[in-house]
Amino acid sequence: MKYKRMKQVDIRPNMTTDELLTSMINGGFTCRKVALATELLEQMILDNSCTVFLGLAGALIPGGMRKILRTMIEKNMVNCIVTTGANISHDLLETSGGSHHHGSENLNDEKLVELQVSRIFNTLIPYDSFVKFEILVQKILKNIPDERMSSQKFLYELGRYVNDPQSIVRAAFLKKVPIFSPSFADSMLGVQTWLFSQTTPLFIDVLKDHSEFTKIIYEAERMGALFLGGGVPKHFIMNGSQLQKGLSYAIQITMDRPEHGGISGASVKEAISWGKVASEAKWIDITSDITLVLPLMVSGVLSRLQD
Amino acid sequence: MKYKRMKQVDIRPNMTTDELLTSMINGGFTCRKVALATELLEQMILDNSCTVFLGLAGALIPGGMRKILRTMIEKNMVNCIVTTGANISHDLLETSGGSHHHGSENLNDEKLVELQVSRIFNTLIPYDSFVKFEILVQKILKNIPDERMSSQKFLYELGRYVNDPQSIVRAAFLKKVPIFSPSFADSMLGVQTWLFSQTTPLFIDVLKDHSEFTKIIYEAERMGALFLGGGVPKHFIMNGSQLQKGLSYAIQITMDRPEHGGISGASVKEAISWGKVASEAKWIDITSDITLVLPLMVSGVLSRLQD
Amino acid sequence: MKYKRMKQVDIRPNMTTDELLTSMINGGFTCRKVALATELLEQMILDNSCTVFLGLAGALIPGGMRKILRTMIEKNMVNCIVTTGANISHDLLETSGGSHHHGSENLNDEKLVELQVSRIFNTLIPYDSFVKFEILVQKILKNIPDERMSSQKFLYELGRYVNDPQSIVRAAFLKKVPIFSPSFADSMLGVQTWLFSQTTPLFIDVLKDHSEFTKIIYEAERMGALFLGGGVPKHFIMNGSQLQKGLSYAIQITMDRPEHGGISGASVKEAISWGKVASEAKWIDITSDITLVLPLMVSGVLSRLQD
Amino acid sequence: MKYKRMKQVDIRPNMTTDELLTSMINGGFTCRKVALATELLEQMILDNSCTVFLGLAGALIPGGMRKILRTMIEKNMVNCIVTTGANISHDLLETSGGSHHHGSENLNDEKLVELQVSRIFNTLIPYDSFVKFEILVQKILKNIPDERMSSQKFLYELGRYVNDPQSIVRAAFLKKVPIFSPSFADSMLGVQTWLFSQTTPLFIDVLKDHSEFTKIIYEAERMGALFLGGGVPKHFIMNGSQLQKGLSYAIQITMDRPEHGGISGASVKEAISWGKVASEAKWIDITSDITLVLPLMVSGVLSRLQD
Repeated sequence: MKYKRMKQVDIRPNMTTDELLTSMINGGFTCRKVALATELLEQMILDNSCTVFLGLAGALIPGGMRKILRTMIEKNMVNCIVTTGANISHDLLETSGGSHHHGSENLNDEKLVELQVSRIFNTLIPYDSFVKFEILVQKILKNIPDERMSSQKFLYELGRYVNDPQSIVRAAFLKKVPIFSPSFADSMLGVQTWLFSQTTPLFIDVLKDHSEFTKIIYEAERMGALFLGGGVPKHFIMNGSQLQKGLSYAIQITMDRPEHGGISGASVKEAISWGKVASEAKWIDITSDITLVLPLMVSGVLSRLQD
Repeated sequence: MKYKRMKQVDIRPNMTTDELLTSMINGGFTCRKVALATELLEQMILDNSCTVFLGLAGALIPGGMRKILRTMIEKNMVNCIVTTGANISHDLLETSGGSHHHGSENLNDEKLVELQVSRIFNTLIPYDSFVKFEILVQKILKNIPDERMSSQKFLYELGRYVNDPQSIVRAAFLKKVPIFSPSFADSMLGVQTWLFSQTTPLFIDVLKDHSEFTKIIYEAERMGALFLGGGVPKHFIMNGSQLQKGLSYAIQITMDRPEHGGISGASVKEAISWGKVASEAKWIDITSDITLVLPLMVSGVLSRLQD
Repeated sequence: MKYKRMKQVDIRPNMTTDELLTSMINGGFTCRKVALATELLEQMILDNSCTVFLGLAGALIPGGMRKILRTMIEKNMVNCIVTTGANISHDLLETSGGSHHHGSENLNDEKLVELQVSRIFNTLIPYDSFVKFEILVQKILKNIPDERMSSQKFLYELGRYVNDPQSIVRAAFLKKVPIFSPSFADSMLGVQTWLFSQTTPLFIDVLKDHSEFTKIIYEAERMGALFLGGGVPKHFIMNGSQLQKGLSYAIQITMDRPEHGGISGASVKEAISWGKVASEAKWIDITSDITLVLPLMVSGVLSRLQD
Repeated sequence: MKYKRMKQVDIRPNMTTDELLTSMINGGFTCRKVALATELLEQMILDNSCTVFLGLAGALIPGGMRKILRTMIEKNMVNCIVTTGANISHDLLETSGGSHHHGSENLNDEKLVELQVSRIFNTLIPYDSFVKFEILVQKILKNIPDERMSSQKFLYELGRYVNDPQSIVRAAFLKKVPIFSPSFADSMLGVQTWLFSQTTPLFIDVLKDHSEFTKIIYEAERMGALFLGGGVPKHFIMNGSQLQKGLSYAIQITMDRPEHGGISGASVKEAISWGKVASEAKWIDITSDITLVLPLMVSGVLSRLQD
């Protein structure tokens, strides 16, 4: 039989995450996929001809992924980010002194609304955090040039004025990693920007993002992407990769399902038919909550890149 | 026991969908939920104080829902639509003479890309349909006023020039049902509009959508919503309902899951903690592919509204 | 393009379920699958060379499917049933005067246990129903021959003494449709039988089921199966079909997923590699709650078989 | 706000799995749940008044979990196991010289059946492995006493004659950890036992398992359980815990969903209404593939138990 024999996963006390991943490749189902995806992520980072795109959807910071995303930027693991507005909003909410708290999905939501606490599955946000966020954003916006700009330019300018070493937007600004957010209007940050823009000439031209994104794509020799969730970020990156010869590397982590035809759950394999992923690409799709896979995978890559 | 006794679902030959729904209320799990949701949809339509919002995400037209959505508009079941750009794109693709075809999720995608056929789960689109779509859109865009406008205004103007009685955008134009698409840039239509806008003063100001949407919300005495999928449309409607006293009626149909914290799979119950759904609201969430629930539910409501 | 063009699903007031299914075949995703599965079920019933197997797992009677399952037996839609013990237990619980009630998945379970009410998602059972069930079963068991027998023989004898025209076990007895339950020990009925058997020579030899099931399989010219859920019933039927030339027809309805390798979520396609489903078989797998698909599908088949 | 503030997950190169888990407790969604479950598992193991039950469903050895399960037995992490027959069958298949191989869920199943290779998601088994398994089992069975026995007694006797230090059944025999398999008939091992039993007085009395299991339950001061998947093992353990005062500790890891009412996807919270889990119990349910969670969790517990 041409298929390689499985050796089963082994564990021992005080093993490193890198050793665990090395052993998980001997298993099946999702543990093998995560181990293979770690190898693939390392490979696309080390491939100098590859521009690495990171798609961010869902509630990553309420899931606890803020530091890991910042580390990925600081350690040069990504070259371009496409995100929902929500991820930027939660990043700035933390910067503003607002906070996320540990709760449970089984709390009584009728009571929570009385207590002025918002719930995102098992994470909670007190309403006053939103107020802190709004005050911070309005303060920052006063510094932004009053002009028509893409979401990418806007987020770059924003990053310039976010005085917080913990911030993702700040880290991306410092590392000159562009962040696109084509659905930016539909977020807490979008609402604040709308309020601000009513009395100023500032406005966000999301169509312009296509010009700037297309430029990055045409400059890329090869494209690789790590999709954390689906949504607009996945669709936008794949819309771009279709203009090139398709992604050469792709890793998708999502709990969404393909049966209803939505982009978020669509398999990577399906994207091949569109020319969004190259037929000869290396790719893996993982059905899992991101918060479980990302820490394991990135800690493994960090260990390996050091060597 | 205060809880009502179940009678079990009954069927007979040549029964109507309305009779089936009436019997499904006697079952449990999802069949009961769909029967209750049908009653709830009828109720919010008949409630004259209620503005009915329809959120459209996912691939509804590749799923075969185009006629049903048009019927909902024509029969005055909805007052305001929020959609992804994809739903408008597929609507216009059909208008342009492009086509969707029956395939299978098990087809070989490497072969499909060679045959120039794109796959959305078990539905297929030949590449030449996209060309037809592009020609149509460029033709229509020439008629659109060259100005800064919201996605809502833009889609209204678009509907004016779509000469196709089958079209959803056309039906909404005729019925004066506003369509918002805050993530419009990230779609085939968005890309075409970007290309067109490079040589004209036209541009889409998605922040402006907030002004127009907020106006509708403040004019509504009560709000009800039917969410077909999640994504930006769900988030945008709920962002609005939060400014009011929360939705009084809500029906959500999605296959997405709450465990990863994303808006698409978040439970309606969770939205209560945010004030997006009122504590005293009537609501139901259904875990199912939309294509299975919507035809049954809307055919039931159609029968009942006639009486 | 060789793939058939989609026409979109159409609805109208007072349409029959059969008409809805006929229109749903023009859609995509799950609605098309359910319409195709209805055709396939009719086809395997009309194929005189085909023995039709029905696999029953999950909580079908708490989901409201009791009458529909009985109708399927009475209308000669199935030739052999394999079930978990739970489905028989809930059938007899209803016969005993016990009851299922409409509740909600959001009820407080700590309060329910105080109220002595058990919850199955949105269905409730008061504890005294279990007492009625136990009294009935102990009464019936006194009539069963005191011997070593297969679960199939045992359930046949049970059906003889269930004096309830609504009962599935009774209907199967009358129609001489054998019911196998290889995991019968693990159910409320199994526990009662264990208690009874402690003072009598009665005992259930589940290995013997293999002898009786194998006989049915070898007598079948062709095999078809409708799998409602997975579990032991699916595995047991497929273990049998593997001894023959594999299933010629297969319909699977489940919400379980293939990613973890369990039989319940495994795709029908995977079963081809095992020889459990023939390479040339006609098959469809549907990702949905059964309570939504089964009433629609069986009402459609009933209408068509009448013609 | 009384809810604890989140600190976000942090990673660094060469961190241990124990350190990762300690950091994951600072995140949200599933990563926090896995970190909490690791603490809970350690706690129930260290609680001397607690009998720890392990429920095994699904395809754990094709997923690569054989060594980890054996380690759990050898390191005294479990006191009693309830399993499907499949897990024992795959354990013995490995012992017999048969093998599992790395494949992909996207392989062509029509070709695999020609190549005589069976697929379980992304794991493959060549048909000749089944032959090796059958030869081994028939050889072992000749040593088993020719009498009526429970599945537990049978598996204990089996373990006596499995001459393989890698085997789970062997490890359980040596450690005197009882293994129950109430649905044992429905497995490859069940089929072999049936064939063997046709010419011998051996037979398996699964009702007898209730007697032996009930004894263990009544001897337990407190009960804790780790459910890997659902199915018969989960149902059987919970049927037992209901006879006591309910589980004091429960961890459930499954990808199955609650919406269809089946036991496999039912929430732990639901089990409280049945008295299967105590109202004051400590419990966590995790929606994930087991192969991803178990290695991480058990390597963490191993590290901590050492200290």
